[in-house]
Amino acid sequence: VRVEVLAIGTELLLGQIVDTNSAVIGEELAKAGIDCTFQAKVGDNLERIVRAFELALERADAVIACGGLGPTQDDITREAIAAVMGVRLERDPVALDQLERFFSSRRTAMAEANLQQADVPVGATLIPQVQGTAPGLICPVGDRVIYALPGVPSEMAEMLTRAVIPDLQVRSGEPAVILSRTLRTVGISEARLSELVAPRLEALDAAGPGAPTMAFLATADGVKVRLTVKASDDATAIARLQGEEEAIRAILGEVVYGVDDETIETAVGALLQERGWTLAVAESFTGGLIAARVVEAPGASIFFRGGVVAYDEAVKFEVLGVPRGPVVTAEAAIAMADGVRALLGADVAVSTTGAAGPTGQEGHPPGTGFIATAIAGRATVAEEMRVSGSRLRVREYGALRAMQLLRQRLLAL
Amino acid sequence: VRVEVLAIGTELLLGQIVDTNSAVIGEELAKAGIDCTFQAKVGDNLERIVRAFELALERADAVIACGGLGPTQDDITREAIAAVMGVRLERDPVALDQLERFFSSRRTAMAEANLQQADVPVGATLIPQVQGTAPGLICPVGDRVIYALPGVPSEMAEMLTRAVIPDLQVRSGEPAVILSRTLRTVGISEARLSELVAPRLEALDAAGPGAPTMAFLATADGVKVRLTVKASDDATAIARLQGEEEAIRAILGEVVYGVDDETIETAVGALLQERGWTLAVAESFTGGLIAARVVEAPGASIFFRGGVVAYDEAVKFEVLGVPRGPVVTAEAAIAMADGVRALLGADVAVSTTGAAGPTGQEGHPPGTGFIATAIAGRATVAEEMRVSGSRLRVREYGALRAMQLLRQRLLAL
Repeated sequence: VRVEVLAIGTELLLGQIVDTNSAVIGEELAKAGIDCTFQAKVGDNLERIVRAFELALERADAVIACGGLGPTQDDITREAIAAVMGVRLERDPVALDQLERFFSSRRTAMAEANLQQADVPVGATLIPQVQGTAPGLICPVGDRVIYALPGVPSEMAEMLTRAVIPDLQVRSGEPAVILSRTLRTVGISEARLSELVAPRLEALDAAGPGAPTMAFLATADGVKVRLTVKASDDATAIARLQGEEEAIRAILGEVVYGVDDETIETAVGALLQERGWTLAVAESFTGGLIAARVVEAPGASIFFRGGVVAYDEAVKFEVLGVPRGPVVTAEAAIAMADGVRALLGADVAVSTTGAAGPTGQEGHPPGTGFIATAIAGRATVAEEMRVSGSRLRVREYGALRAMQLLRQRLLAL
Repeated sequence: VRVEVLAIGTELLLGQIVDTNSAVIGEELAKAGIDCTFQAKVGDNLERIVRAFELALERADAVIACGGLGPTQDDITREAIAAVMGVRLERDPVALDQLERFFSSRRTAMAEANLQQADVPVGATLIPQVQGTAPGLICPVGDRVIYALPGVPSEMAEMLTRAVIPDLQVRSGEPAVILSRTLRTVGISEARLSELVAPRLEALDAAGPGAPTMAFLATADGVKVRLTVKASDDATAIARLQGEEEAIRAILGEVVYGVDDETIETAVGALLQERGWTLAVAESFTGGLIAARVVEAPGASIFFRGGVVAYDEAVKFEVLGVPRGPVVTAEAAIAMADGVRALLGADVAVSTTGAAGPTGQEGHPPGTGFIATAIAGRATVAEEMRVSGSRLRVREYGALRAMQLLRQRLLAL
């Protein structure tokens, strides 16, 4: 079966809410091996919603709609579907009963407006609510089908996995899974990366259907390589992904630092744990961001001692023992890393000092920083960084770069 | 003019990335008073991209496309637009020159693959890049137009406001603005808030067109009240928003802590600066998140001394002077706040200690924490918090709650 997604709501078009529902639906469909080739957003306008449904049903076997099932005047998804089906709405006693029980269980009077949430196009099947007030609907249109789900993300996701995906799998008949795996890289450009793997990509293309496909994605965290396979079952798909990951790692080597949700902090944490080492951080312009990212890594409580956010220069001098004088320097970064390593009794430390902006500092333009890495028994080294953009961007880049430099040093030991 | 948005990329359909670009475009179009009635997502498939453009151009005067301008094989937006225009691609010398300068300024060799980013449909105009490598394109199709923008959000947003919106405003001729303002509240439920402002809402409804509209949005950061007005010019719109903000503030009082992008940290920073006070933080389970949020507040360098991330309990004992013993206690939180205030020489301090999960600590379930606030010359007080959810959610709630408690204490002085 081929499926399209229609997210309904003027607030989505106006950008007042980011439509995350379509992404969740796309992900679940992919996992179930169901093709989704088109997704759209439309506002709370009856005529345009009807047109959007009709258009989608010309191209696809099923449409999953989300939003517009609420109790207010601009919730018109039910009316639009009834129009597409060519039927009228009828108040459903089961839906009405559920609504009444929802409100009485909360000892709240049901508003008159909620009654319309029990209206159902004749011929449609209810998907009962388990969280909120709007039931979902399965609405046959000839040999095709519209699923209507609430716009509240948790309610939508629950009905999607409970009712919609199983119904689509029954309709599709052929079981298939699509699985993806993302290799995360650092320190290599997208273009260079695609050059390196081009021969492998050609081999995959030549191998024809069933072979993994590959996509590149440039992000603030580095370039990601996403491998995707379609197979008849999970085991086959996983085996193919595994083989392909090994082939790509053989080509790219150390620039691959992790897979899927593994962050650079996770990679650094693993290197530290191999040696039984602990980490401390001293942060000026990154302002706690490195620490906040490190504590998200699994096992952080084993290897992370903590840190000092030395935002005011007095804290650098008095707490970390940085010599009085300019603080946006390699020397200050080195003194901060050494100072925090000693203060917190850690084996390894990383530090940042610099000007995040909007103004410069000590004659340096905003976006200038120094990052130092200290390892017990080895010389502490600092590197200058330059980056343009907002304060937040400068900080995020600094936090990422600090971990990259630490990873490089740990790998080179 | 009527505009549609087309986000291009298989990763969007698969839900591997949430399409935030369309929301940003929708928001900017709304601000400029330009109608956007439909937005769609399509994968990296030439035939389907071409069909999506053709369909959109049947309904709308302009299409803003984002994504698919990169250097890899799956970046095919340029080809698709050339097909829609019925022209071929030609390598543009200006675009090529920009690309070469981009790489030489970074002392990096340009990969062969990047050359295709200088390919332009004959008849299209370049939107020069100022950040990355992919230029944007303005592509006339008869009396209609396609704008092609990069998928990288910061590059997209920059070109949108610099080149696309002004071009659309020239094409549209009739000036109108839609402006919004969001009042941020804390410590009040959505239902209670809507009860309080119900009379005001009725008055606005009765006032008819031109009056501001109001929407409520429950978020992790508290309930937000969004006011929106449409007017013929900025000055009129701003005056109406201003009047309405005052009316709502008069009803809600102190629960309103900020407007638009003002965070709770900004509000706390303003209260501290009124008194010329400085702030220090001691963080255990929030792991640097409070500090990272505080340094984003304007003027942080004036009022923020810094902090200690005391993740390991040894750091609590040795650096902050917490008495040895259990650390997930009100007493430990108080000792941490007092300790960091003394260590960093600040007037005010806040601390967090607790179990973020996935496991509990010292017999407390995950999501249990203690938050203390210390103010020079006053008793330091602690509060227990309980929240369910992921480690990140527990941390984010703790960071928010710490600032809420500090704001309450500062307001009550």
